[in-house]
Amino acid sequence: MLPIREAFLRQTDEKNILLYNSKFSFFITIMTEFFKVTELSKVLEYASAFSRVEIEEVPLLDTTERFLAADIVCDHDLPDFPRSTMDGYAVRGSSTFGASEGNPAYLNIVGSVNMGQSPDFTIGPGEACRISTGGMLPAGSDSVVMIEHTEALDDTTIEVYRSVAPGQHVVAVGEDIKEGETILFRGKKIRPQETGLLAALGKTTVKVYKRPIIGIISSGDEVVPVEDIPGPAQIRDINSYSLASQIQQTGGIPVLYGIVRDDYTLLYDKCVQALTQSDMVIISGGSSVGARDFTIEVLSNLPQSSILVHGISISPGKPTILAKAQNKAVWGMPGHVVSAMIVFKAIVQIFIEHIAGRREHQHPKLKLSARLSRNLSSAQGRVDYIRVRLTEKEGQRWAEPILGKSGLINTMVKADGLIAIDINTEGLDKGSVVEVIPL
Amino acid sequence: MLPIREAFLRQTDEKNILLYNSKFSFFITIMTEFFKVTELSKVLEYASAFSRVEIEEVPLLDTTERFLAADIVCDHDLPDFPRSTMDGYAVRGSSTFGASEGNPAYLNIVGSVNMGQSPDFTIGPGEACRISTGGMLPAGSDSVVMIEHTEALDDTTIEVYRSVAPGQHVVAVGEDIKEGETILFRGKKIRPQETGLLAALGKTTVKVYKRPIIGIISSGDEVVPVEDIPGPAQIRDINSYSLASQIQQTGGIPVLYGIVRDDYTLLYDKCVQALTQSDMVIISGGSSVGARDFTIEVLSNLPQSSILVHGISISPGKPTILAKAQNKAVWGMPGHVVSAMIVFKAIVQIFIEHIAGRREHQHPKLKLSARLSRNLSSAQGRVDYIRVRLTEKEGQRWAEPILGKSGLINTMVKADGLIAIDINTEGLDKGSVVEVIPL
Repeated sequence: MLPIREAFLRQTDEKNILLYNSKFSFFITIMTEFFKVTELSKVLEYASAFSRVEIEEVPLLDTTERFLAADIVCDHDLPDFPRSTMDGYAVRGSSTFGASEGNPAYLNIVGSVNMGQSPDFTIGPGEACRISTGGMLPAGSDSVVMIEHTEALDDTTIEVYRSVAPGQHVVAVGEDIKEGETILFRGKKIRPQETGLLAALGKTTVKVYKRPIIGIISSGDEVVPVEDIPGPAQIRDINSYSLASQIQQTGGIPVLYGIVRDDYTLLYDKCVQALTQSDMVIISGGSSVGARDFTIEVLSNLPQSSILVHGISISPGKPTILAKAQNKAVWGMPGHVVSAMIVFKAIVQIFIEHIAGRREHQHPKLKLSARLSRNLSSAQGRVDYIRVRLTEKEGQRWAEPILGKSGLINTMVKADGLIAIDINTEGLDKGSVVEVIPL
Repeated sequence: MLPIREAFLRQTDEKNILLYNSKFSFFITIMTEFFKVTELSKVLEYASAFSRVEIEEVPLLDTTERFLAADIVCDHDLPDFPRSTMDGYAVRGSSTFGASEGNPAYLNIVGSVNMGQSPDFTIGPGEACRISTGGMLPAGSDSVVMIEHTEALDDTTIEVYRSVAPGQHVVAVGEDIKEGETILFRGKKIRPQETGLLAALGKTTVKVYKRPIIGIISSGDEVVPVEDIPGPAQIRDINSYSLASQIQQTGGIPVLYGIVRDDYTLLYDKCVQALTQSDMVIISGGSSVGARDFTIEVLSNLPQSSILVHGISISPGKPTILAKAQNKAVWGMPGHVVSAMIVFKAIVQIFIEHIAGRREHQHPKLKLSARLSRNLSSAQGRVDYIRVRLTEKEGQRWAEPILGKSGLINTMVKADGLIAIDINTEGLDKGSVVEVIPL
């Protein structure tokens, strides 16, 4: 049994809800409900509770890194004619069987294939025609002899020094993609190769999900706009901008709603406005208890609102709040800039990608391996995110932890990535192989 | 000694220059100059031969993933006041020395710090004031006792159960960034944390390098626009779109100049036009020898032009040409879609980032490790790029080679990344750890 004081302190530690009434200048530690921290994995499961944004049709060149909103079915064989992959002579493979340096095959040249034109002649046994890479094989031919394996004796005869198998140096009809094949699925992120494929299929416009609009509200009596010179005890609104930039990287459109004082009505009204105009809302909280309290109160009272998560078992970032209001996610982010950025990277980003149409598990996560440069301890029962700098030593990549308070943005500027220490791990030894999430 | 025929064939293989005159329908294998393939590492060294694009000043929120065009010096300490990192009481640390559960320190509450306001009182020995996270420490105080380690006896007195060291739970003046410190350097890629830092410094606009404009010219008699239905022996213009999308991902602005027939004058004129309007030009060649020949001829004859590279020791992508004309890079890309994309990823991207202002070696390359799922052979004397699909088996990431002709775009759609087999490596064994370049 713990002494009563100890038990109280631990519970307060876990709870961490303080009411600070600056008007009457006193603290009340409220303990009316038990503070339930949600595990990270459970939080991420909520993503699928939110609907995807609407669909729009955009020009092909505006699709890069968007999410496809419809399956793509190939409406013709690709290629739809047999194409040479080499410069040389189109032949029947059987005409070259047994050909060698010492015993060349002699073939008659019956013509030349012009690029982009269908040949108007056929190739019979013992015949050949000139063809370039990408040219269409004439009827009767089934393979291409490379120019390097031939010698032209005159304008009408070649020697062939190697045999080719039927199909060799040819892309067959439908070999790239067959007619009727569903080649891309809804929710696929469009990379350059997908853009190329869509071009091959003649898609001048493509149905994609809209870029989700993410409203950002900054709150806190100490926060001033970037263009202002902060007075004593004031700081500029950093979080709105780092979050907006993270939203852009995720494919969303950030909309900044400015800074709201620590006032219930002002925050509520701004939040309702943002909720109406956006697909998701992020309240970048002031770091004071007052600001935090207003946030939870506002989130609870929004139209059709329920608080899904109040505290997450990660560090930094524990005091994060997630509400669902009018079927949209509304976040109360932690105030420290590092915490807010890490919560975005580890959690919010996944929600934005979900509503933006992303299909689950479509690409492996981009993580890179490195060895840890020193021992790291970690509390069990939570996922710890550690900022790291990457270095190369003797051909080995090392992750050097950057320790520092989560209010210091310079630690993020110095960092190349994050490593996550799992909920059930007490720590990591120097030299362990860790996966780095790039920043 | 090789037999003469063998020697001839090898030389022809290396040379690979064919002149194809479709008008007169004959091939000429020219061997007037020795075909010199340039090593990949040498090609990349040419990047620094090209000047960077111009500078522009853009709003802070338009800077994401742009390259800084000026060093950023911090013009004030960040923070410029001592900030609390906890909710609790600001004190002199010495007032708490020796405090414990059994022997608490008793402190007089002399006030409360309001967020965003400079306290108008000082803290003396034995005194404390209420403070929230982010609040400014009053003169005389040097540390913060967490609320959890105190108990308020009444409105004016608290018990403190733990001692705090001076500086504890406080961000000191200049602890994040010191006045006068050069915190970001020219050429740095602006990530969300850099955007946040620029916000902290009050930069509403930022000097960055312009996005480079990259002209793309497609050539080839067999190529038709995406909106057309290809006739027999014709294909749609895939490469312009996959390259344009790669350019967008690299931060450039692609400008499509359409498709030019295999005609010297047409290609020359279009090339001069693109060169005037762009910072770099890519000729996405038709795959025929005719198209390749026109390209090299045009590149040689452009104003103030020299051919820097004619063939690169990589596979696929060997027939790549690099010219410098009017101090701009002009590329003759290989015709096969896979080859063109790989040459872009391995080479052209680095040139674009250079002219876009990127400082060298500023971030570690994003590669991920995996184990190779099968043996791979490779020719020495060139770098082989192999498309791979990534899979997870028993917690291990595997790279499965996707083999297939370099004209098949579906192999790129199926691929998650590339692995490079070094110039001096003959092959890789199943189970080897390989670095994967994400696609």
